[in-house]
Amino acid sequence: MKAEIISIGTELLLGEIVDTNTPYLAGQLSVLGIDLYFTSAVGDNMARLKGVLKQAWDRSDIVLTTGGIGPTQDDLTRDAIAALLGEKTEVDPQLKQGLINFFARRGLEMPASNVRQATLIPSCTALINSQGTAPGWWVEKEGKIIVAMPGPPGEMQYMWENQVLPRLQERTGAVLLTRMIKTFGTSEAKVDEMLSDLTASTNPTLATYAKLDGIYIRIAAKAEKKEEAQKMVDSREADVRAILGDIIWGVDDDTQEAVAGKVLLEKGLSLAVAESFTGGFLAHTLAADANSAHYFKGGLIAASSEVKVALGLDPKLVNGEDKAEVARAMAVLARQKLEATVGIGIEGEGHSEPESGMMAGTVFIAIDSEKAGLHAVQSYSGRLYQMKRRAAYYALFDLVKLLRA
Amino acid sequence: MKAEIISIGTELLLGEIVDTNTPYLAGQLSVLGIDLYFTSAVGDNMARLKGVLKQAWDRSDIVLTTGGIGPTQDDLTRDAIAALLGEKTEVDPQLKQGLINFFARRGLEMPASNVRQATLIPSCTALINSQGTAPGWWVEKEGKIIVAMPGPPGEMQYMWENQVLPRLQERTGAVLLTRMIKTFGTSEAKVDEMLSDLTASTNPTLATYAKLDGIYIRIAAKAEKKEEAQKMVDSREADVRAILGDIIWGVDDDTQEAVAGKVLLEKGLSLAVAESFTGGFLAHTLAADANSAHYFKGGLIAASSEVKVALGLDPKLVNGEDKAEVARAMAVLARQKLEATVGIGIEGEGHSEPESGMMAGTVFIAIDSEKAGLHAVQSYSGRLYQMKRRAAYYALFDLVKLLRA
Repeated sequence: MKAEIISIGTELLLGEIVDTNTPYLAGQLSVLGIDLYFTSAVGDNMARLKGVLKQAWDRSDIVLTTGGIGPTQDDLTRDAIAALLGEKTEVDPQLKQGLINFFARRGLEMPASNVRQATLIPSCTALINSQGTAPGWWVEKEGKIIVAMPGPPGEMQYMWENQVLPRLQERTGAVLLTRMIKTFGTSEAKVDEMLSDLTASTNPTLATYAKLDGIYIRIAAKAEKKEEAQKMVDSREADVRAILGDIIWGVDDDTQEAVAGKVLLEKGLSLAVAESFTGGFLAHTLAADANSAHYFKGGLIAASSEVKVALGLDPKLVNGEDKAEVARAMAVLARQKLEATVGIGIEGEGHSEPESGMMAGTVFIAIDSEKAGLHAVQSYSGRLYQMKRRAAYYALFDLVKLLRA
Repeated sequence: MKAEIISIGTELLLGEIVDTNTPYLAGQLSVLGIDLYFTSAVGDNMARLKGVLKQAWDRSDIVLTTGGIGPTQDDLTRDAIAALLGEKTEVDPQLKQGLINFFARRGLEMPASNVRQATLIPSCTALINSQGTAPGWWVEKEGKIIVAMPGPPGEMQYMWENQVLPRLQERTGAVLLTRMIKTFGTSEAKVDEMLSDLTASTNPTLATYAKLDGIYIRIAAKAEKKEEAQKMVDSREADVRAILGDIIWGVDDDTQEAVAGKVLLEKGLSLAVAESFTGGFLAHTLAADANSAHYFKGGLIAASSEVKVALGLDPKLVNGEDKAEVARAMAVLARQKLEATVGIGIEGEGHSEPESGMMAGTVFIAIDSEKAGLHAVQSYSGRLYQMKRRAAYYALFDLVKLLRA
């Protein structure tokens, strides 16, 4: 089965927005095992839109479109599909009432132009849009499928997951399940090498992705029934865990900060941080976690040696050579000053590497807790611009590992 | 003149990367006044790549391609263009020597496969790639142009700016200059309305963009000579400044943190922050500025009332109703504890708005400096999830305004 994606909207051709719908849908199709050979973008112009649709209809089995289904005269997707198939759009009374109700709930009258969003053609069924006013279209004719979805990524993804994906899975007679396994501290090349016995498999498949907070591994399994796909994913996850072991820190929507928070809460601990090298990135990351009010106390950010001294550190220590000891003193200071049971201290320095000329950063991460009996310091090096953020993830990863040890 | 953009690479069709080259080039073409009607992506497959190139060649005057000019067998762009034009690729001795030298400087021998990157066809001249090994192709034939550029965005943009844009400007007989004017604190709709007398102009043009740190206005002017375009941009910038006044905080690559840093340094001041609501985002933003070592002292991040007290604030004040006074006390505390001459305190709270059900945030921003004679507190409200970051920009914007008053 061959698919094609068309993004519709003049704003795409002016470079005003980045099209994230196409890569999202491309990733979904890849996981579904549906071949994608072409993607394209076209403006709000009837002749050109019809041309692009016609070409896609001729050469592909499934055409996915995003955009152009709003209420204005510029929104041409519905009319272009109708013209391509030689059908006529008509207002659907039920859809129209739904739109009237949508506006009424907001104390508004439906603008007359919105009635365009209540139109259908004989070959199409409406896809409910619970996130906006534009229903999608599911069109089936001559063994081919066109799916018209809204342009705003939130609306599009919700409709894809809840309305389009289940229908496609029905058509392809396959249920597809995925799981993302998240690791930290090992390079993508090394993870690939460790998993090389598993990557040849075509079902389930494995794919790796490099992110700031580590290497992700996506497991995707296709089966006739959900239970079957679930079993395949679970079993492959067990294989991956047996190989990768404790470099895995989470799955799917997990974040390192949320995982660390969960472990802290389980152990009845609270956290405070003192940062120089990362300049508040760790505190910001922790504070942004929805649950952090229950375990995160706060942070001390020191941009210079003088400030470290002003906050209470020993001047001799601060100005000395032993950065590991500075990190340790910072962890203790944060824990004590902010009345937490665990303290993290991050100290570091940048330097240019003589061989490569690359700017490298070395970071010292101390984790200190009287209550949990932890007094650890680790150091890591890497590219300077990356380390200024990655150091926060080293700290969270180390914290979880130590608390679980 | 009609242009078309083709992105080449199977990774684009697997959803593994987001194509940022296309929106970048689209924005550049829009500014150049060259019409862009279609963009597309195609994988590393000779038949499909040739099909897409042929279609673009038939319907457009300028075809821009990105990707597929690396050294491997998967890199098909050169061969596809040669096939389209019925020409033969041949190794160019000078290009080959350049590649050999490139590797020699790194103490390496050129891999045999890289010789593919030294090939040209009769209709093409090489575009130097100072950022990588893949030279671009500038092809002119039958009054049409094909430009083949590398896929990595850094290499592509550098080649575009230095090699492609000047040639296109020569062809179109026009020089194009742009300037981005950056504002804060006023909605995009309001900025559009204020500038409505200027937006009808087709040269220079105005376009607005909404960003987290404010509304940006892009001025673009086209002229035969650079001096002329420069004059037009300068004059339009003066018009915009006369209308928007002090909501403008910067131009082009300016960031609010760098602008604030510059003003602080000019006045011989230094800055420390105390944050609750923003959880370290302001400290992180300031620390990330390349110059911040000269003016930024550090921050105190308090995630709870208890921590505010532990850091030295009056418990009665902290637990009272007057959040503006808490913000003020935080600003003073930060300034004193971290030995800075200016302190910023950010306190805030989230609440659900009864009418809309929206989660709103109200933030109190205090700026305090004995030395500069500043003791100001302002409050702002907005969507909660946005305000947790936007508050940092309110603080920086207010700081610059107060220091310049």
